[in-house]
Amino acid sequence: MNTFGRKFRVSLFGESHGASVGVCVDGCPAGIGLQPSDFAADLQRRKSGARGATPRVEADAPELLSGVFEGKTTGAPIAIIFRNENTRSGDYSNLLSQPRPGHADFVAARKFGGYSDYRGGGHFSGRLTLSLVAAGVIAKKALGSVTVASTILEVGGVKYGEHEALLEEAIARGDSLGGLLECVASNMPVGWGEPFFDSAESLVSHIIFAIPSVRGVEFGSGFAAARQRGSEHNDPIVASSGKTKTNHAGGVNGGISNGNDLTLRVAVKPTSSISAAQQTFDFEKGRVDELHIRGRHDACIALRAPVVLEAATAIALADLMLLNVGSAGV
Amino acid sequence: MNTFGRKFRVSLFGESHGASVGVCVDGCPAGIGLQPSDFAADLQRRKSGARGATPRVEADAPELLSGVFEGKTTGAPIAIIFRNENTRSGDYSNLLSQPRPGHADFVAARKFGGYSDYRGGGHFSGRLTLSLVAAGVIAKKALGSVTVASTILEVGGVKYGEHEALLEEAIARGDSLGGLLECVASNMPVGWGEPFFDSAESLVSHIIFAIPSVRGVEFGSGFAAARQRGSEHNDPIVASSGKTKTNHAGGVNGGISNGNDLTLRVAVKPTSSISAAQQTFDFEKGRVDELHIRGRHDACIALRAPVVLEAATAIALADLMLLNVGSAGV
Amino acid sequence: MNTFGRKFRVSLFGESHGASVGVCVDGCPAGIGLQPSDFAADLQRRKSGARGATPRVEADAPELLSGVFEGKTTGAPIAIIFRNENTRSGDYSNLLSQPRPGHADFVAARKFGGYSDYRGGGHFSGRLTLSLVAAGVIAKKALGSVTVASTILEVGGVKYGEHEALLEEAIARGDSLGGLLECVASNMPVGWGEPFFDSAESLVSHIIFAIPSVRGVEFGSGFAAARQRGSEHNDPIVASSGKTKTNHAGGVNGGISNGNDLTLRVAVKPTSSISAAQQTFDFEKGRVDELHIRGRHDACIALRAPVVLEAATAIALADLMLLNVGSAGV
Amino acid sequence: MNTFGRKFRVSLFGESHGASVGVCVDGCPAGIGLQPSDFAADLQRRKSGARGATPRVEADAPELLSGVFEGKTTGAPIAIIFRNENTRSGDYSNLLSQPRPGHADFVAARKFGGYSDYRGGGHFSGRLTLSLVAAGVIAKKALGSVTVASTILEVGGVKYGEHEALLEEAIARGDSLGGLLECVASNMPVGWGEPFFDSAESLVSHIIFAIPSVRGVEFGSGFAAARQRGSEHNDPIVASSGKTKTNHAGGVNGGISNGNDLTLRVAVKPTSSISAAQQTFDFEKGRVDELHIRGRHDACIALRAPVVLEAATAIALADLMLLNVGSAGV
Repeated sequence: MNTFGRKFRVSLFGESHGASVGVCVDGCPAGIGLQPSDFAADLQRRKSGARGATPRVEADAPELLSGVFEGKTTGAPIAIIFRNENTRSGDYSNLLSQPRPGHADFVAARKFGGYSDYRGGGHFSGRLTLSLVAAGVIAKKALGSVTVASTILEVGGVKYGEHEALLEEAIARGDSLGGLLECVASNMPVGWGEPFFDSAESLVSHIIFAIPSVRGVEFGSGFAAARQRGSEHNDPIVASSGKTKTNHAGGVNGGISNGNDLTLRVAVKPTSSISAAQQTFDFEKGRVDELHIRGRHDACIALRAPVVLEAATAIALADLMLLNVGSAGV
Repeated sequence: MNTFGRKFRVSLFGESHGASVGVCVDGCPAGIGLQPSDFAADLQRRKSGARGATPRVEADAPELLSGVFEGKTTGAPIAIIFRNENTRSGDYSNLLSQPRPGHADFVAARKFGGYSDYRGGGHFSGRLTLSLVAAGVIAKKALGSVTVASTILEVGGVKYGEHEALLEEAIARGDSLGGLLECVASNMPVGWGEPFFDSAESLVSHIIFAIPSVRGVEFGSGFAAARQRGSEHNDPIVASSGKTKTNHAGGVNGGISNGNDLTLRVAVKPTSSISAAQQTFDFEKGRVDELHIRGRHDACIALRAPVVLEAATAIALADLMLLNVGSAGV
Repeated sequence: MNTFGRKFRVSLFGESHGASVGVCVDGCPAGIGLQPSDFAADLQRRKSGARGATPRVEADAPELLSGVFEGKTTGAPIAIIFRNENTRSGDYSNLLSQPRPGHADFVAARKFGGYSDYRGGGHFSGRLTLSLVAAGVIAKKALGSVTVASTILEVGGVKYGEHEALLEEAIARGDSLGGLLECVASNMPVGWGEPFFDSAESLVSHIIFAIPSVRGVEFGSGFAAARQRGSEHNDPIVASSGKTKTNHAGGVNGGISNGNDLTLRVAVKPTSSISAAQQTFDFEKGRVDELHIRGRHDACIALRAPVVLEAATAIALADLMLLNVGSAGV
Repeated sequence: MNTFGRKFRVSLFGESHGASVGVCVDGCPAGIGLQPSDFAADLQRRKSGARGATPRVEADAPELLSGVFEGKTTGAPIAIIFRNENTRSGDYSNLLSQPRPGHADFVAARKFGGYSDYRGGGHFSGRLTLSLVAAGVIAKKALGSVTVASTILEVGGVKYGEHEALLEEAIARGDSLGGLLECVASNMPVGWGEPFFDSAESLVSHIIFAIPSVRGVEFGSGFAAARQRGSEHNDPIVASSGKTKTNHAGGVNGGISNGNDLTLRVAVKPTSSISAAQQTFDFEKGRVDELHIRGRHDACIALRAPVVLEAATAIALADLMLLNVGSAGV
């Protein structure tokens, strides 16, 4: 459902065109410095504004409702909300009859008996990642010296930085592009990850696949490992700290962090909302018909995704950190 | 930890060289026909024996301890154990001083304060997948008309079926190979998957990354989506059932099954245990030294993995199925 | 932590003197009519104002932030907040040195390393029950024809209705009184409650003991059963519906509802905050000293507890209802 | 369902007349000494044999299947089974048509669509407490210096020790008696218990109400608190350790342990199976008819319950202990 984590527990709520989106973070250790300004940098990174990003502009000012006292976390749940202000409900009225390809319109209507809020994707909107980023800011603070950083590797198959022409072309055609991201957690200790079902990769992938538009997650050498030999893939340990010569394992063995960097890559699909005409089923007419999506959207959602990916990874790591406390004895 | 699922709940236990490995399945609906012979086919598929697979041979006869009465599930937990018989504990004594690259030896010892059972990888052994396969047999039955099938696409980067020479060469060199698998769930209904954190991909990837040796999971067009445009990636709906013309989404929109086949691919790393000499740290000597792994192992663990992948996928789908019951109203 | 329920999931947040208290209800079925006015009656019942209740007056107007669209639940999380307005932080400054007997002041400070919000009890304040009552309103709607009703049986050991003199005397002395409550759920179906650890009594008592001031919970004949014989305690079934002649079991057998009324009683301790002088430890002085509690408080918190008890019971029942769906087959 | 605990996690399985009952304990810290002989004392206390207890005699020898290596816990799940040997299936055939009052026969059949194992109560049998006691032995070891001890206070309303005549009379009449138990946990630290829904009382009562036959649970002064005044109920703190002069709170404030003994009392109903004739519904005849219960049963199940109550309490405390680790900072 809308909660992730067993000790560091994040619950999301909200809709694209409702009153607010928000998040509640339970289980955060007490005594961590936290104030509204701490959210500014990551929220800004997520914000639209860059070329290829939606022109919907929101203040995205976090309201801290609970869990912080005299500038520090108290151990009680931290609730944060963001008011939705810049909503145009009229834009989305045709989603009822003609669900958009790639979106949750059709499945949400069916799953919830026709009662889901369809405006702007409702609860399935990318706007919910605002809550995730806010929770990620808290998780990063809880992680202390462990740092999490994401970068864009490719846009539409082209190396990031060299992708401008491709992006302009996509925008001109009313089309969209996918992207490839990387995320690295540094200064990792040994021991995070629980046996079998709560492996580090299991928890990290669980939350990453909750980010809208993610199509694939790989750790270390990832899919390339399927083409390797053991003699090249195995990472020789070269120090008593567990440091390995290579890091094909992505910092995890047997589901447990081995003290090397946690490394992963994520495939982001091209934005589903495109201006160009598409064919899809019209439930009113009972036949396939042309669809024109109006409204505001990103030409390449991957461009705004790194901070979301960092947040998701940091949340999973914060949970793994707290789950590990006491494993070697009480 | 060692439990997966909120409604269809699977708990594993056991070690490679302990008394038994086993599994407890709680939350399975009552009235499903189940007897020991139902496990034979899938257990046989997982078994060693094929070229490139470990010569350790176990009877792998399931003992059903509970939860079945007069040949049908009762709604109570179903516990199954498999006795370990063919164990050679003497083979693994050097793991204490020189942990094997790619294995959990080092991290398990550190995480559990030196108390983990290191024989044959202990609780981190691939032998635990026996329990997963057994639970998968029950999940497949619970799924009714939804079927789950896995195939091997590649071995060591070569198309399956054309990989024999490569495998022989790897065996001759004492090396190992990775592999690429596909899994498809057919006859999927619309509506499985919960909003945000319990998306279908989240739960399925969570359990798949618990399978030892998995390095990557992708759904639908997966990593290729990062190089696509929206106009090619979007799947046009072509019927009121939700059927789409293409299936780049892999059968899931917004985390919820859309009625098309659920499709995914998994990268399996080359077996970490290889006969060829390796360099790695020797904690007794306090320096890197040559390591020779004795004992029995698979040259390509991916060859035995399809049935494990099916089991993991089926377990996640059974949980998603039961979680979805009642979503559109009680 | 601050979340209850596996399918109908309630998460609380907030502090007595922070910005807000609030609640997020996840897993509520879609299509249930819900609007702000639905909360008025139960919120009013919880409110102060009666003789013996605190004079702190709050508007307690619920802000529905998410999960409702066109007057109906959508299947997405329902977040509700209540602003704290009438707070007087100056009242509570001496809690740091001299924790109040019966309150969480001491344990919260110790558990959270001195970072807990101590103003008015902070997160441990009875004000959090406002969130519980709001979630209870939603749970009651989700329960459909199953109704939950609580009454006060006794105040300070005297039958409710005959307790006025006793209450006046306690107020005059700056003292407080405990109370005894009953709660009955009617129109119960057969089958709610899961085997062993998630018995109906387990889930219901779990949430009831989360209500501040509860000291005991009993079902059916409760503690009186310890003095009965089997021949008087056993409830003969008298109809094929499962209806029993007596209801010593309180509507539950083997942890599963049997179709008769669910009945339970709850002991509420006397309010811990009293105006009369008390002796307790002063951590600044390092010795026991006299304590004078200033501020506003209830002389008998049990008087406001029935609607809180109803809410808790309704939430547990809503979760049990949803957990039961599909038990007899998918 | 059949699992309790978030960090110290206990899963039960088995039926009265199936192959085995068993338990799997996950999350137990590594390095705790554990061998089969450690179970002997508590299993013996639970065993039948005393006057008023069922003559069914089982060896109850625990088979440790996993999670222990060289006499110490490894951090992996600990699975234990007990073979059922002394079963007489013929005794229970009439439960299908005439469900026993006070038992789960009727509700189990209805809940699980007629597929439940009805022999001897199946999964709802008191025999499942064998698994609970085994898990309790492990929990007690994990608790270290915190000790848990239960005693019988009353049998059939008569002080324990003075109850023999009453018991003999009940046996002679084919009737049964209830009982009152107390449980005390000593050497408790400050800080166990999580805010609101996972209060110490919530978790402890949750698992205690899972024990068959429990009708009520109260902490500290319990139901007597409903008749007290704040000035008598409040426990003055008398030392910087948090020690209180009295212990009406039962060692818990705001859901969190305060360093004083955790004290609770439990009401156990009279055994439902009685030899004396009863009236109840016969589903075959479609009318109320006389019921004669054959088979073996306890005249006062409370006599065997103390060790079960200790086990339940110890399991909840072990979970609370592990949940608390790290609360005041990572």
